Amino acid sequence: MSKAKIAVNGYGTIGKRVADAVQAQDDMEIIGVAKTRPNYEAAVAAQLGYDIYTLADRVESFEKAGIPAAGTLDDMVEKADLVVDCTPGGVGESNKAVYEKAGVKAIWQGGEDHELTGFSFNAVSNYEGALGLDFVRVVSCNTTGLCRVIYPIDREFGVKKARITLVRRSADPNDAKKGPINAIVPNPIKLPSHHGPDVKSVLPNINISTMAMKIPTTLMHLHTINLELEKDCTAEDVKEVLGTQSRVRFVGQGITSTAEIIEVARDLKRPRNDMWENCVWDESITIDDGELYFFQAIHQESDVVPENVDAIRAMMELESDGAKSIAKTNKAIGL
Amino acid sequence: MSKAKIAVNGYGTIGKRVADAVQAQDDMEIIGVAKTRPNYEAAVAAQLGYDIYTLADRVESFEKAGIPAAGTLDDMVEKADLVVDCTPGGVGESNKAVYEKAGVKAIWQGGEDHELTGFSFNAVSNYEGALGLDFVRVVSCNTTGLCRVIYPIDREFGVKKARITLVRRSADPNDAKKGPINAIVPNPIKLPSHHGPDVKSVLPNINISTMAMKIPTTLMHLHTINLELEKDCTAEDVKEVLGTQSRVRFVGQGITSTAEIIEVARDLKRPRNDMWENCVWDESITIDDGELYFFQAIHQESDVVPENVDAIRAMMELESDGAKSIAKTNKAIGL
Amino acid sequence: MSKAKIAVNGYGTIGKRVADAVQAQDDMEIIGVAKTRPNYEAAVAAQLGYDIYTLADRVESFEKAGIPAAGTLDDMVEKADLVVDCTPGGVGESNKAVYEKAGVKAIWQGGEDHELTGFSFNAVSNYEGALGLDFVRVVSCNTTGLCRVIYPIDREFGVKKARITLVRRSADPNDAKKGPINAIVPNPIKLPSHHGPDVKSVLPNINISTMAMKIPTTLMHLHTINLELEKDCTAEDVKEVLGTQSRVRFVGQGITSTAEIIEVARDLKRPRNDMWENCVWDESITIDDGELYFFQAIHQESDVVPENVDAIRAMMELESDGAKSIAKTNKAIGL
Amino acid sequence: MSKAKIAVNGYGTIGKRVADAVQAQDDMEIIGVAKTRPNYEAAVAAQLGYDIYTLADRVESFEKAGIPAAGTLDDMVEKADLVVDCTPGGVGESNKAVYEKAGVKAIWQGGEDHELTGFSFNAVSNYEGALGLDFVRVVSCNTTGLCRVIYPIDREFGVKKARITLVRRSADPNDAKKGPINAIVPNPIKLPSHHGPDVKSVLPNINISTMAMKIPTTLMHLHTINLELEKDCTAEDVKEVLGTQSRVRFVGQGITSTAEIIEVARDLKRPRNDMWENCVWDESITIDDGELYFFQAIHQESDVVPENVDAIRAMMELESDGAKSIAKTNKAIGL
Repeated sequence: MSKAKIAVNGYGTIGKRVADAVQAQDDMEIIGVAKTRPNYEAAVAAQLGYDIYTLADRVESFEKAGIPAAGTLDDMVEKADLVVDCTPGGVGESNKAVYEKAGVKAIWQGGEDHELTGFSFNAVSNYEGALGLDFVRVVSCNTTGLCRVIYPIDREFGVKKARITLVRRSADPNDAKKGPINAIVPNPIKLPSHHGPDVKSVLPNINISTMAMKIPTTLMHLHTINLELEKDCTAEDVKEVLGTQSRVRFVGQGITSTAEIIEVARDLKRPRNDMWENCVWDESITIDDGELYFFQAIHQESDVVPENVDAIRAMMELESDGAKSIAKTNKAIGL
Repeated sequence: MSKAKIAVNGYGTIGKRVADAVQAQDDMEIIGVAKTRPNYEAAVAAQLGYDIYTLADRVESFEKAGIPAAGTLDDMVEKADLVVDCTPGGVGESNKAVYEKAGVKAIWQGGEDHELTGFSFNAVSNYEGALGLDFVRVVSCNTTGLCRVIYPIDREFGVKKARITLVRRSADPNDAKKGPINAIVPNPIKLPSHHGPDVKSVLPNINISTMAMKIPTTLMHLHTINLELEKDCTAEDVKEVLGTQSRVRFVGQGITSTAEIIEVARDLKRPRNDMWENCVWDESITIDDGELYFFQAIHQESDVVPENVDAIRAMMELESDGAKSIAKTNKAIGL
Repeated sequence: MSKAKIAVNGYGTIGKRVADAVQAQDDMEIIGVAKTRPNYEAAVAAQLGYDIYTLADRVESFEKAGIPAAGTLDDMVEKADLVVDCTPGGVGESNKAVYEKAGVKAIWQGGEDHELTGFSFNAVSNYEGALGLDFVRVVSCNTTGLCRVIYPIDREFGVKKARITLVRRSADPNDAKKGPINAIVPNPIKLPSHHGPDVKSVLPNINISTMAMKIPTTLMHLHTINLELEKDCTAEDVKEVLGTQSRVRFVGQGITSTAEIIEVARDLKRPRNDMWENCVWDESITIDDGELYFFQAIHQESDVVPENVDAIRAMMELESDGAKSIAKTNKAIGL
Repeated sequence: MSKAKIAVNGYGTIGKRVADAVQAQDDMEIIGVAKTRPNYEAAVAAQLGYDIYTLADRVESFEKAGIPAAGTLDDMVEKADLVVDCTPGGVGESNKAVYEKAGVKAIWQGGEDHELTGFSFNAVSNYEGALGLDFVRVVSCNTTGLCRVIYPIDREFGVKKARITLVRRSADPNDAKKGPINAIVPNPIKLPSHHGPDVKSVLPNINISTMAMKIPTTLMHLHTINLELEKDCTAEDVKEVLGTQSRVRFVGQGITSTAEIIEVARDLKRPRNDMWENCVWDESITIDDGELYFFQAIHQESDVVPENVDAIRAMMELESDGAKSIAKTNKAIGL
């Protein structure tokens, strides 16, 4: 069987990881990545062996920079079965017409609105709903992180309501422009934040309310999670349920911070020190008077990466069973 | 009437502010401050005109540093009616015997346990309970900030339960040793955190649960507050109630972060850019399905300072009415 | 004698400080400040009693924000003898025509080019050259900090060459947008940096070469200074010379960082915790084989403020002797 | 030929990297690593297949943590031909007696004094001097970074004097305790700093003087380098010389900061995103009036790692030619 031909439009934080994760699978392959600027990331992409495409009016600048383009964005789209759009939030929407015209399937990221595709994807929560779809949106890093724990807990114990604070990193590690350097920025100030409704785009029946802020760190987000449950249960019961989730990882062994979580990823020789799993401090899992509390850290650069692979597999109907796709994706990337 | 004679033991972040705030009142005065090291803070204290005392075995080191001590800690305690103990958390407890022996009243800060004094103080919540007491504990910056809003909201609308996340600055602005530089530290990891029980030391009937972390900023803490209310009310009703609180300040006018709050304090020429009030984003106050949500920022260096002054006034029975003491304290320091 | 009428165009970090410093003098007064946005800084300005002007098309937005404007920028310029332009770097240049047309004198800040005025000012270095001039540029915080120490050392010992690294704060304390959060940014990458030539705009005969970078801090810049001297001298000789400079402050007494320097300013109750002086670690002053080495910290928000006052005094010919102006300015602001 | 048996005492930032780098060579192997605490790093070490040793009184705590120790430190030392001591600075010295008693060779890191071994090592500068030695000290990350560029430039053009500022990261990425969060810390305050003499422990004839500070970043150090040269040359000449150095890497292609350098290492899938080479901005290399200027960034966690491998090879006399050892080490680790 020939592999599904996948293109990545937008080779930044998410795009470059999706490219590598797709390339690691045996049922799909990268036929090209598109980038607008011939910078160091493009140079490494070329070194890694990817065919690089760009906008028609940028071809010359790539030539000059010594990173010749294999063609234009249109050329790349034409060769693909499916495009993963990883362009910056809000930009992706304008590419829809290009993909429709070329008759290719497409995935967008969480920076776009649910309405763009009508289907918001999280592998453990609704894989089967994406089977054969043409357009799918993989939800954001924070929403992915929330769905991964709320879905199985709701299924097992019933979630009466979810009250969550998202403490967000303000810039990715390679971003030397964005701040703040020394401040806390409630964001958005108007409450509740959009993160709750975004979770409902995947899990429509959850009563969820969220508050969010940005803080001066680059490594990971931290969520404080409070869930009122329908059924009586113990912290051990919750650990058992979360313990069955391959994309939830318990952290302990003296790990006190997001910094040490990333160090584990480095020590494990994970590519780009990616921590694809939700990192839950198992010691923090507490049931008190019918309410569940815990901390989880979310690696904003990488947690959606295996989700994109699963979304491809569902849309291309390479596998009909979500659990099997998740296992296959995980194994291929070394999760 | 002669002024109450107040000594400050521990001239650091809190101690130096309490000294200035006491000195600004007309019914109490500073008769000395005690410090263990003759560093730049001691030098400025001398410049500001305070009599500096130290431990018996440190007198010589002050002499050498050109900041002669007025005497020992015991000398200072003897001259005082009341000592405000601002030594580091855990140290203060061991001073109790000294104060008892000298027959002086004493106030400790929130770093000590409730049990040390049996009375935990917050001016708006329980001023009258401190009248004439010998030993009182002024609760921590975070607990003070929580009591100031929970108490009036509970009185007006009834607080069924409080679910709060505390995002804490990791070091004060003048601390160049403590980190983290780039990490989020859930702290404590075991849940719920001690902050809830600490609020109950002042407001025993509140159902409160808290989660806390430390982050790389020095300016202020941020609280995300979620209160289930007994009575129906609107965001406007809540604003009205909080608007009556002299130690709650609404922030808006383009203020997006803790950094700009501190800039307001600087622009107002507040001493040491102190923001004694809870800073609540009024735009964030939201009622949704019987639950109240808002953000508040707490200036950890200064919010307990006026509370210490009020505690002195209650313990020395200089004023029997809490509201009058609060107004008097505020006016004297320029709040 | 009537006071010189001074207007401040651009009420941001520098503008608001210049306004207060001018207002503190007895031979000049603020007749208005101009601001483009009715934000919290404008609100405090109104509270402090300044007449606020704005651009003609912004008058309405001030009205709506409850901070009514006293008139337009043109109205303000018309009433002034001299305008201190504190608009962002590069913007100020375009205002020159406005000032010329109105026939008022004007001062610009270091973000503009030397050529805009033909005279770059530093009080201790060239006060007398500014007497009666119409247009003057007060050099940047870093250049001011360098001139203040290089000028007196050159006069006394001769500076054969100056080799300096400037480690710059990346954003001011109230700026929650700019980063980096966790990176060092050599800036500019091409060497040597423009700071050397800028010093030469004040001290044309100094052989100076500089390298600069931006780092994740907001409080102060740090300079590492290496000067080859013409004459033999000792560290004590250098301390003596710098000790005569009223705008150089020695730091010691356990001060290990820029954070503790700012704490001194806070403890001294300086407005906005401003540290107008160069802060030189006297313990760092070293002579080794004819070369002088030391560290100095520069408070980017405030060191040019007294310089602006002196520039006004020179341009308005209120005082012909630089040393007298410096002393008068210092005394009025409490330096 | 059997491989040289290497043990690593101290499995932290440097130790774990040296273990992996040794393991990647074909003429040496790791026979064990010693660690004092059974934390997450120990758990990953076990997962990576290393035999873990510990202090006699810690064996039980490893057992309890589910990471059984293979024996005591003494057991490990006995089995080794050479121990790489990567214990914290100052601790390593006390281990010398253990190694001497067991009759094994040993390498220490730059945190120890030169006198401990009498030979300070940098591969490109003095490989041959280490041939057959029993005890060697591999110099610190900063000294290594300086020797790598000063040595070849001195050999080619003659270095009359070196004037260098070291802007140092304050904590490693996985350290959530150390600060500062928002300050610059001149360190040491007394000048010149010890880094100059440390370079002279490798290159005794260089006239070098250094100033250093700590800043709030975790990723890399930055050096501003100013060298007076004996011979006339151009920036191109310097680039040519540095271009021949396999452990010097030029950075450009839009890279503006240390953050983007680390991103390159991540994109290249370097283990733990290590950047073993000095990173020199080639655009910054400038010759002005006989003086050379440039910026280089140094990855404190990893630049000494290949140096340790070379030191082992020299001491074990596995290769007599430094250039060949360097090439072999580089190739094996993927540099």
